[in-house]
Amino acid sequence: MIKGALLDLSGTLHVGNVALPGAVAAVRRLEGAGVPLRFVTNTSRKTRDTLHGELCRMGFDIPREHMFTAPLAVRHYLERNRLRPYLLVHPDLVPEYDGLDCENPDSVVVGDAEDDFSYRKMNEAFRLLKGGARLVATGRTRYFEGADGLELDAGPYLAALEYAADTSAVVLGKPSAGFFQEAAADLELEPWQCIMVGDDAETDVAAALAAGLHGSLVQTGKYRPGDEARIAGDFFLAKDIETAVEEILLRINTCP
Amino acid sequence: MIKGALLDLSGTLHVGNVALPGAVAAVRRLEGAGVPLRFVTNTSRKTRDTLHGELCRMGFDIPREHMFTAPLAVRHYLERNRLRPYLLVHPDLVPEYDGLDCENPDSVVVGDAEDDFSYRKMNEAFRLLKGGARLVATGRTRYFEGADGLELDAGPYLAALEYAADTSAVVLGKPSAGFFQEAAADLELEPWQCIMVGDDAETDVAAALAAGLHGSLVQTGKYRPGDEARIAGDFFLAKDIETAVEEILLRINTCP
Repeated sequence: MIKGALLDLSGTLHVGNVALPGAVAAVRRLEGAGVPLRFVTNTSRKTRDTLHGELCRMGFDIPREHMFTAPLAVRHYLERNRLRPYLLVHPDLVPEYDGLDCENPDSVVVGDAEDDFSYRKMNEAFRLLKGGARLVATGRTRYFEGADGLELDAGPYLAALEYAADTSAVVLGKPSAGFFQEAAADLELEPWQCIMVGDDAETDVAAALAAGLHGSLVQTGKYRPGDEARIAGDFFLAKDIETAVEEILLRINTCP
Repeated sequence: MIKGALLDLSGTLHVGNVALPGAVAAVRRLEGAGVPLRFVTNTSRKTRDTLHGELCRMGFDIPREHMFTAPLAVRHYLERNRLRPYLLVHPDLVPEYDGLDCENPDSVVVGDAEDDFSYRKMNEAFRLLKGGARLVATGRTRYFEGADGLELDAGPYLAALEYAADTSAVVLGKPSAGFFQEAAADLELEPWQCIMVGDDAETDVAAALAAGLHGSLVQTGKYRPGDEARIAGDFFLAKDIETAVEEILLRINTCP
């Protein structure tokens, strides 16, 4: 039944700049078995090229085109809908939108803009929304662990703009069903033919199940004992990516 | 039925530093007719003393004690609960909280902080909330008419912090029912004996109706055609404060 796999990056394949034990070999094993893969992430502070370079340096031999990131999904969405974005994103992510027409914006893209979430820029975004611009975002994450404590992620600022302009954002990263479905489509597979592997019980696994995929929760990264209780539906728990891959290959080989 | 009136300030009586046409005379007319008044505002950029001085200079002859402001309501709340606030308010409003202990904060006060809504300060406030601090605010207003267009008010930032820390704020200004009821009580009247006049369909009018008052929406300030559709209940639309006052006097005179 399972034909392809979506693998989360941070916390599943690596932590910081270091590959998790067995992760490089596990990915190689899946590829060797001919299982089509996509590497999926919401990370909204880096372009796909930057991320790809980092993964290569950690030892992962992944074609750049197999990386499916939320900011890139946003770019595809903008292109498909011929939208001209106002970018409220991290400065390091701006190159991901190179070449798009940003004059006279008719859409607002919210990522994890950090210090660029200034009152001035929030006002600019808000005025565009009041004028009818479409609100697009990479995710709804509340916060993350920063260098010196918890830091606000894009979610709260998205909530602020939605409330201010009385509108709802189109969210193109995890946990939106569309994100998983597009990643599956990128593999030319149906959602039910794919399995999502990640360390976030809600955003990776529960959300993937809700989108019609299979799921596996790895006990690395942000996983904490008991997280699996937050998942309703059929999934399997794996010690790490190595164990998850073993189980996936087993299921592929025993299913017609 | 109507015996007293609560009048909003910005957008209803004045815009910027200029009284709206007919506004000074309209207020004088109400006072001349013996209608008890309170001037109610969430304005969280100025102390009551500053606001009062400005209104006087615009030509309004109002006793300072007839001004009922949200930041002052917040100060009373902090004192009553012996809270030490972290102030995320406009720099000009800080003096309203003079003398309060702000060391080692156990509460976060959100007003209309403008440029002080920086990523750094929002993170500080967020970390306090995650540590259990109480969230207190002057209002949930979405935006206001600034010098060069619409600007975000405190509401969106409050929504951001509530979402980030998964908490609910104690709101002591409009649109909270308690604010209108306290203003009515200040006039020694019941809510249903008072009418609230303002330019914000939701925060002024719909909220006052929900608190049991009567309401009138003026088509000045931030009013935009169609705003009245957001009000459920019995209210009247008026071109401006002059027309609203005329209608109020009519209703007072024709009702027992």
